[in-house]
This record gives sequence, structure tokens and C-alpha cells, in this order.
Amino acid sequence: MSVAGKKTGAFITFEGGEGAGKSTQLRAVAPRLEALGYEVVATREPGGSPGAEALRELLLFGKHDLSARAEIMTHFAARCDHVDQVIRPAMEAGKIVLCDRFFDSTMAYQGYGRGEGDPALIAMIRSLRDLVGLTPDLTVLFEVGLETGHRRITARAAAIAGQGAPLDRYESADRAFHARLAAGFRQIADEEPQRFVRVSSESEDVPAITDKVVGLLKTFLEKR
Amino acid sequence: MSVAGKKTGAFITFEGGEGAGKSTQLRAVAPRLEALGYEVVATREPGGSPGAEALRELLLFGKHDLSARAEIMTHFAARCDHVDQVIRPAMEAGKIVLCDRFFDSTMAYQGYGRGEGDPALIAMIRSLRDLVGLTPDLTVLFEVGLETGHRRITARAAAIAGQGAPLDRYESADRAFHARLAAGFRQIADEEPQRFVRVSSESEDVPAITDKVVGLLKTFLEKR
Repeated sequence: MSVAGKKTGAFITFEGGEGAGKSTQLRAVAPRLEALGYEVVATREPGGSPGAEALRELLLFGKHDLSARAEIMTHFAARCDHVDQVIRPAMEAGKIVLCDRFFDSTMAYQGYGRGEGDPALIAMIRSLRDLVGLTPDLTVLFEVGLETGHRRITARAAAIAGQGAPLDRYESADRAFHARLAAGFRQIADEEPQRFVRVSSESEDVPAITDKVVGLLKTFLEKR
Repeated sequence: MSVAGKKTGAFITFEGGEGAGKSTQLRAVAPRLEALGYEVVATREPGGSPGAEALRELLLFGKHDLSARAEIMTHFAARCDHVDQVIRPAMEAGKIVLCDRFFDSTMAYQGYGRGEGDPALIAMIRSLRDLVGLTPDLTVLFEVGLETGHRRITARAAAIAGQGAPLDRYESADRAFHARLAAGFRQIADEEPQRFVRVSSESEDVPAITDKVVGLLKTFLEKR
């Protein structure tokens, strides 16, 4: 809801496992919302601010493995910087922030994926989430079958290998990890049905999925 | 207290502002404890493990300023790795861990120094301290007057400049910051008198200070 003379910002996150197409969708959805008259900031995690991008480099391509707890805390340190320096200022200026991954990815990847659901790690992620103190207004979860996701990341890997760029740690992880990840995302979405909308990205018809997401976001933004 | 057949580790931290001499003392004290028959691990923060050292580089020499909250969380992320990969394993092996700075430095530098005592930052540091879940058995606070501390860091800066190495962010900070830092350390020590011993390092007689600290630690370790 808009207060007279004051635009209201919103924080919308796109989540999903590897090959779910969320980054592709975010790039397609942002200009469509702008065409509807919204000011849009498109950003991503880990990263999204200069300091957080430096932490991203260390998380994705660092030479030394951090302990499970330290990896989680480094993700949240990057997130704090992103929230403080980019997301909150944009929201306060009345903008719609679209973010590719946020804390649900830490819960899925580090909690359920790498952490295999370890209750101590899950509890730590919840505490850090509370410390960051910003929850998305809406989260779109892109879901894709394991076979389709695997086929897409394999194709992307081949394309990237041709350019000489390395696959990051998560793109090269094994199948059991991806299965835990998908189950983790489902569980997170089930726990907060009011915040999540789930979108199948099994189809290769990318524009049709974009239309669907734009429709969902338009309805959400107009209803506020 | 030792349980028969099982050595008991200990975690001892050295704290203080710039020019208080704690790093010099730690290097001198470690071999003296070894000569008394203890297995000693000498380490430091930020850093102390390969992943934490990478985070240290970013904190002390990074090109991009992190937000106050993100800087605090990055210090604790490095600390988590150091605790998980170095400190806890050494303690479990019955060793005496001597650490140059630990969470009291984050409270003093980021809470009272840079944060100027902002209650939200102080509360965040306390929450993160609880998440790390390891408190030193004993903390030696080295205290030095502002004039003496300033003279020592200026001399160190001149020596380092001759070698072409940069001063880190804290060594080049201003006087008001150093005054807040010293007051912050005093307050932290006052809040936990059972954990802290305060040692004046105003004197230039470094070996005499080492003798005093070795005496204190010997008494503490034998009494356990």
C-alpha cells in the first residue's frame, strides 16, 4: 500500500537450485517491471555490493576450505553488507529490489546441502537470519527436476569450459547434494507458505515462464 | 585440574590497544611456558587458520569498506574458522593455546572504537560471541597510556615505512579512536573480573613484564 507522497519499496527474492533458471528469469523480469513503471534494482548473492563481492570470490573460488560454521557466517557477513549498502537504501528510496538468492539459499546449500540438515547448523543459520533483520516480502522458488537441472548445468559447464572459466564449487557438486538441496528448498517454502510462490521451470519455454512470473509480481505489487 | 591419563588444554588470550606490547609478550611468553613442560600453540586474530588469514587480508587491507555490521560479522566468520580448525583441536589435544586478540578485540575495536558504543552493534557482537561458543579461560589485558601507545605505534610505523609495508587501518586511526578503545577494554575487563588479569605495559623493561606474565600464567595453569 502506498502512503500519499511516499513510494513504498519492496524486496523480492528468486531462489532455486542449479539449473532452475532463476538468474535468466531475473534478467528477463526486471525490464518488464520497469516497463510497468516500477524502479527496479536487480542484484544477486553472494555479493551485490563491492565488499560482498570480495567475500563472494573467497567463498566460491578461495584456496582454503572454511569450516562449515565459518562458511555460513561469511555468507551472512556478505549479506549484511549487501543489505546495509544496497538493499535497504534502495527500498527506502521506494525501489523494487529483485535479488538472485538470499538467506534461503544459505539454509538450502549450507544447512541442508553441505550441512546435511545438522540441527546445530540450522539453528545457527536461523540466529544469523534474525541478526540480519530483513526478510523478503515475496520469494519466488523456481523448481526443476533433478534430471533437467543436471542437464542444464552440464550444458552450462561445457559452454564455460570453452571460455576457460572455472565451474564454481556448487556447480561441480555431486547428485546427492543436489537432491538434498531440492528437498531443502521445498521444506523452507513449506514452512512459510505466505512468503513463497513456487514456479516450475521444467519447461524450456523461457518467455512463458517470464510471463507467469511477471503476472505474479504485478499482482503482488498492486495488492500491497 | 587434570583428570588422570588426560591432559587438559587451556585457552588464554592477550588483549590490548595498539602499542601495548601484547604481540611482543606473546612471542616471549610462549617458549617460557614450553620450558615449563606445557605444549603451547601460539596464534593470532584476525587470522590464525588459512581461511581466516584470507579474511584477515580483506578486513585489514581490502579495497572496499564493509558496513559496520558486515565488518563485525566478517571478524566472527574468521574467528569461527580459527576456533573450529585450530583452537578447539589444540585444546582437545591438551595444549595451551595463547592467542593474540580474540572476541574482546572485536568488542573494543568495532563496538566501542569504530561503533562508538552503538547499543545495536554491542548487542550484535554479544550474540555472535554466543554463536562462536568458546570463551577464553583467562585473558591478559595489557594496558598502556595513550601517549606511550602513540609513541610506540609511530616508531613502528616509521620502521615499517622503511620496509615499504603499509600500515593497517587500525594503526593509522586517530587519537579519539584510541581513547575510546582503551576505555572499551577497561569496561570489558570490569564486566568479567574473574576472567581478566590486567598488566601495565607502560614500562620499557620488556623482560620484567614477561616475567610477570609467566608468573601469572604459571599460577593459573597449576591451580586448574
